[in-house]
Amino acid sequence: MEHKMILRQVKLVTIIALDSLEAKLIQELKRLEVKGYTISEAHGEGLHSIKNSDWEGKNIRIETLVSIEKAERLLEVLSKNYFEIYGVIAFVTNVEVLRPEKFT
Amino acid sequence: MEHKMILRQVKLVTIIALDSLEAKLIQELKRLEVKGYTISEAHGEGLHSIKNSDWEGKNIRIETLVSIEKAERLLEVLSKNYFEIYGVIAFVTNVEVLRPEKFT
Amino acid sequence: MEHKMILRQVKLVTIIALDSLEAKLIQELKRLEVKGYTISEAHGEGLHSIKNSDWEGKNIRIETLVSIEKAERLLEVLSKNYFEIYGVIAFVTNVEVLRPEKFT
Repeated sequence: MEHKMILRQVKLVTIIALDSLEAKLIQELKRLEVKGYTISEAHGEGLHSIKNSDWEGKNIRIETLVSIEKAERLLEVLSKNYFEIYGVIAFVTNVEVLRPEKFT
Repeated sequence: MEHKMILRQVKLVTIIALDSLEAKLIQELKRLEVKGYTISEAHGEGLHSIKNSDWEGKNIRIETLVSIEKAERLLEVLSKNYFEIYGVIAFVTNVEVLRPEKFT
Repeated sequence: MEHKMILRQVKLVTIIALDSLEAKLIQELKRLEVKGYTISEAHGEGLHSIKNSDWEGKNIRIETLVSIEKAERLLEVLSKNYFEIYGVIAFVTNVEVLRPEKFT
């Protein structure tokens, strides 16, 4: 082989939220200096919140590739300010990339 | 640090199916008492089935966070009744969450 | 138990790209004889490229389940011809399936 491919682990943080929270959540990502994110539309059930307990509508799915440290800081912010009040769900997946320096 | 963040592992089950199967698959999730799910639209190739062998149209992508036990039961149902007949695809990812009790 | 469920590991490759690259990227997947893929629409920030440095528009998210070997070959192609020029992002996730022979 000409070159050996070296895959490095980063964290994929996936956030599921009501679509009305998009601007607010992007602001949180920017505050943490996340370099990029992807948003797609979804719908579903299970996002119960104090503010929207009887509402099941459009959801968004935000994904961002970050370092372990930033993943933890993001989850802290979500846990403190979004999980209970806004019914936001978040999970972290170990993924591998070729250029980890792009996703700090 | 004020508090230590403890992430726990749960299973993310992702199901790719023809969009005509949405109601039927949601019924299966409810039968297994899954607490929540997210559905997004997709398109693609590779979902071949006995019933729709020459059809490539709208797909859905259903995602649900569940315990290991429920992930296995869901895969059993899909494997027995959906993989061959309806060309459904499913895969399981280990993900981490802060509140595993929400995803049993 | 009547039968033991055996889950096998395959690789989920996720590609985030400008939607104008869809046909070109599908061609790459077919050249590698990937058996199936799913595409969904998204939007976001962070896909900078030489050709579209000031453009933030529609993105696509392509997902394909493949063997380790094919995941590496796909990443090599993307790394050589798409990462810098077209600002494409790709990451690999370990996932488990029941029928690994379907995703070679």
